[in-house]
Parts: sequence; structure tokens; C-alpha cells
Amino acid sequence: MTKAKGYAAQNAKDDLTPWSFERREVGPHDVQFDILFCGVCHSDLHQVRNEWGGSIFPMVPGHELVGRVTKVGEHVTKHKAGDLIGVGCMVDSCRTCNNCKEGLEQFCAEGCTMTYNGYERDKKTLTYGGYSNATVVNEDFVLRVSEKLNLAAVAPLLCAGITTYSPLRHWKVGKGHKLGVLGLGGLGHMAVKFGVAFGAEVTVLSSSPSKKEDALKLGAHKFLVTSDKEQFQAAAGSFDFILDTVSAEHNYSQYMTLLATNGVHICVGAPPTPSEIFSFSLIMGRKSLAGSLIGGIPETQEMLDFCAEHNIVSEIELIDIKDINKAYERMLKSDVRYRFVIDLATL
Amino acid sequence: MTKAKGYAAQNAKDDLTPWSFERREVGPHDVQFDILFCGVCHSDLHQVRNEWGGSIFPMVPGHELVGRVTKVGEHVTKHKAGDLIGVGCMVDSCRTCNNCKEGLEQFCAEGCTMTYNGYERDKKTLTYGGYSNATVVNEDFVLRVSEKLNLAAVAPLLCAGITTYSPLRHWKVGKGHKLGVLGLGGLGHMAVKFGVAFGAEVTVLSSSPSKKEDALKLGAHKFLVTSDKEQFQAAAGSFDFILDTVSAEHNYSQYMTLLATNGVHICVGAPPTPSEIFSFSLIMGRKSLAGSLIGGIPETQEMLDFCAEHNIVSEIELIDIKDINKAYERMLKSDVRYRFVIDLATL
Repeated sequence: MTKAKGYAAQNAKDDLTPWSFERREVGPHDVQFDILFCGVCHSDLHQVRNEWGGSIFPMVPGHELVGRVTKVGEHVTKHKAGDLIGVGCMVDSCRTCNNCKEGLEQFCAEGCTMTYNGYERDKKTLTYGGYSNATVVNEDFVLRVSEKLNLAAVAPLLCAGITTYSPLRHWKVGKGHKLGVLGLGGLGHMAVKFGVAFGAEVTVLSSSPSKKEDALKLGAHKFLVTSDKEQFQAAAGSFDFILDTVSAEHNYSQYMTLLATNGVHICVGAPPTPSEIFSFSLIMGRKSLAGSLIGGIPETQEMLDFCAEHNIVSEIELIDIKDINKAYERMLKSDVRYRFVIDLATL
Repeated sequence: MTKAKGYAAQNAKDDLTPWSFERREVGPHDVQFDILFCGVCHSDLHQVRNEWGGSIFPMVPGHELVGRVTKVGEHVTKHKAGDLIGVGCMVDSCRTCNNCKEGLEQFCAEGCTMTYNGYERDKKTLTYGGYSNATVVNEDFVLRVSEKLNLAAVAPLLCAGITTYSPLRHWKVGKGHKLGVLGLGGLGHMAVKFGVAFGAEVTVLSSSPSKKEDALKLGAHKFLVTSDKEQFQAAAGSFDFILDTVSAEHNYSQYMTLLATNGVHICVGAPPTPSEIFSFSLIMGRKSLAGSLIGGIPETQEMLDFCAEHNIVSEIELIDIKDINKAYERMLKSDVRYRFVIDLATL
């Protein structure tokens, strides 16, 4: 075992504080790396506060890691010391089920190994995330990262990026399509960038008129204030796809009216409460309400390569790790444009 | 105008009774035909009793018509006197919107003209349906019917048939797929026949164990009693598609657990109350909840041709028109296997 340090939640009530712990030795298929930057995802906060239940403490959050390889195991072929790499929400999976074989490790039949707040395949060794100086991950779950981009701003691609890239690719959103992006936060702002890059006409749907300027600056073609009844009604039947990034409680049925025939409303946010849905709102126009979860390892690599090629990164606010608890408070008030990223050099 | 007779509801409370009314003269693009058989759809009952609101009286229900052409207008090219034909839920549409141009008249942007309880394109002439001796319909909404099949059993194809055929075709359900058919009634029994014909492994999901024998006789490969918790849990993650034909109140979320990765739950029934849905149940496994409404005219013809080729008809109970009110009462108790069809010779 090797010593590691980081910030951890010791329970669901208290602030995160500095904590020392151990990482495993580098195994034959492992990659060890120094963590340079780690994005702060809203789900970190949910899990730290045990809002989804089942949280395991102490917890070192963080699943948007970018770092540089320090050492690789003897059988590692994909990475070498000195490489820039990234790790997202998963660090392992069963490797044998149909979903794993198809590169959909996020839907592993036995459950994938989450980067933190989870157990390794042995079902007893806790995983600790990226609010930390260094870690060790199996090479198959380590992604190549280009040297070309702003590294800190690459970190959020590992969750916010792939979570929005994957559904847009799966449903083949592109030229000729009208895409609505519901919510302009960490996920939403990436959805705008990808939607625009894929050639769709992108409209940001937000309850905050104040976000219009940002939306257009990010590349969106249009902005719709969802609380404005007239605007809402005028947009009826106009979207081929809505990518719904909102995690707060909301009603899907009303957005169905905005969809064109064959339209798809794709949820990537997970509100804590269910929504009501009338089947009639789906039947009229052959519409779908769908969901999507991050993306598999091959697609995450594809997304990182796409971002390097098209110069796409997240909009971030870089923070010192000692300010993580303040960052959580600001995140709760949606006071972040659009992703906090921890500079691990401050640890 | 020409005289017609039929059975009509004069209001939402009383039984249907014999009624005389007028049909339009045969226009240049019209087809006049004697109605031989008319299926009895559950939606007839909903509309007769004004359960969906907006019912227009007097109402002559019926949108599953099979008949023989007696006269055609001077510009009619698609049909001629003596032809066997069918008419389904629509008798006209705007013809100019994108959906109409694509053969999705059921989603006409201006609203299609329903076969009964609707208005012609002039927005003032009431339409009267198939519980009647004869009618006049624009040739473009008149379908060719094969002489090969049991005509009475063809009638329900015009609504129950296309309503189940269309989504199975749209989502390309076939060989290698596991299809669950939820509910074994007028729609469900047709879904079984089509699912089997398309090469899918078909399981009927029903709360009534008593329907097992029928399900297997209809061609289903398996039967799952939805009220049996053990059976339900054992089937978790096993269906690529569920075609949900249930119109009674039910919860979609629970069925999501039965879907495999990328699974689609397709609603063709329209319960009066909304269902709750957790986005999480869609996100895990990239699942979709979708809807589908009858089918367009070109696809309805394709379905009728497919049925003629594969010898597919509905399971019916032929009734005298004077027994229509009793049939409604039995339908309310699901006491019909699987579709009542009125023999118009009894009028």
C-alpha cells in the first residue's frame, strides 16, 4: 500500500476535511497517476450528504480526474509514465456481461465499480475518488487526454461531458435537428457545446432569463424562458430532441408539448421525486421520454478525442481544495458558471 | 344527400337506438360503399359516454369498417364499384403539412378528420361512423381489402390491427427481440399475432392467469402473471420491448424494471390518469417510455396486405346491431374475446 492524502467526508453532516489514507500497490494491469485536477459534480454533494442513501464513509469524492501517469504495471500496454490521462465515474466492471462486452460498462449487469463511494470487484475494498493527490486505476478504465487543451477544463468532460455527449450521439442528434437543452448548468452548458458542434440548432430552455447572454456566448442559437407562457406556447411542437439536464423536481408532461412528431425528451438529471406523465402526451406525435447514464469507456475516449479535435472544454472556476465546502454551498445556489474544478496542487 | 340509417347515441346517458340521417352525395374523389361489418372499439364506448369530453351528438360510432363499393366519383382512380374496402379511424386530413406528406395523417398538424365524432374539413359537417348501412369517404382514406380473409374478422384490423402493427414496425421489432405484450384484449391479442409474425419471442403480461391458455393459443411463447411477484422479479431486465395496450390506470415505473438495456415501453392505451415515472428508472439502462397512435394511411394498407399474405385476422364475436348496448356492458367487464364486430346485415 502507498500513502495518499485528500479531502474526505467522515459522515453525512460535517464538512469535508483533510484525510490520509492508503491506495493499493500498482498491480500488473494498473496505472498509478498524480491527480492534477478534479471536477466537482453535483452528485458529489448528494453522496457526501447521503441524499441518495447508501453512502459509505469516510468518503473521498471526485469522479472527474485528470492527471499524469507516474508508474504502470508490468502488463500495461495502453499507458506509460508521463502520459496525461483521465478517469471518470467508473474504475472497473465485470468485463464479461453483454453490456461490458459492448462497451456499455455503465450498465454492467453486476454493477460497475464507481470511482468513489463504491467497492472494488472484491466487494470489500472501498474506492476513494479524485479529491486526492494520487490514485491507482486499472488501465482499461484510464482514458488518454490530449496535451492541447486547458487541462483543468478537461476534467469535467469525464462526467458532465460524456453524460451529454453520449445521448446526443446515441440518438444521432445533428444537422437538421432542433435541440432544446433544458437547464444551463454543468451538464447543460456542455450539451450546448456538443449540440452546436454536431450541427443541431440549439435552444437553451431555462427559467432564468439572466442566463440568456451566457447561452448565446456558449454557442446556443436561441433562448427560451420556460416561465414565459407565451414563449412556451409559441415553441409548441418545435423540438426534435430535448436534453433535460435538470435535477430539481419538474414535470415532464409539459415539455412533451414542445416536441415535434417522433420527438425524444432525454433525461440525464435525476430529480428526487417522480414526475407525472400522461400516456396521451406520448401517443400524440409518437413521442418518447428516455434516459441516459454517462457513457461507456470506448465512447468516453471518443468524446475526449472529439473535444481535442474541436477544441471543446468545460467552462470552469478553479478552486483551492480548502474551499471545497464553500464551493458546495455556492453549488446549492446554482452560483457556479459552470463547473468548479479543484486544483490539486493546492492540497 | 342520400338517406342512411344506423344506430346512434343521442346523448351521453341513453342507450344507442336506431336513427336515420343523411350522407353526402358522391363527390368526384369520393367512394360510396355498403358497410358489411364494423368492429366495436373500446373508444366507441368512451366517446358515446363522453368520458373524454367534447363528444358531439347525435353520434354514430364505429371506425373499423369493412364494406363493398357501390359507386365512385368521376375522378376516383384507386377503387371501383364491387371492390372490397376498409376505412379506419380517419376519413380526411389537411394533406399539406409535413406529417400528411409523410403518410402520418394521424398526426396532421391541423388535426385529421375522425371517422365519427368529428368534423369534415369544412369544420361544420359532422362525421358519422360505421354503425350504419352505408357511407361516403374520400378515396385516399379508403383501403383495399383482400377477398381471401374472413371479412368480419378483418374489420378490427382497421384500428386494433394498425394500432399494434405500427409501433412494432416503427421500432423494428423482430427476430432476436423479446417482446412483452401488456394486456390481452382487443389490442393485445393483435399485438401477439403481429409480434409472432415478425419473429419476436412474445410473452403476454397479464394480471389474469386465466388468459394463459388463450395467449399460447394465439401464438405467444410465454405468459407472465404480473400480480405474481416472483415471476415479475424473475423477468427483470428481460424484454427489449413492451407493448402496453392497457387503458386502465397503471404505473409505468414498475414495468421499466422488466426492460433490458435500451428497452422501450410503448404505450398504445391511454389511461385516464397520469402515471408516476422516476427519471432514474429510464436513466439506468437507457430506457424509453414511448407512445404510438394508430398508423398512417400508407402503413394501414401495408398492414392489411401483410395480414392477407400471412392470414392474420382478429378473434371476434359477431353480434346483431340491436345487441350493441349489451355488448358495451360486456366490454366494460372485459367479457369479450377479443373484439365485437357488428354484422350490418342485421340492421
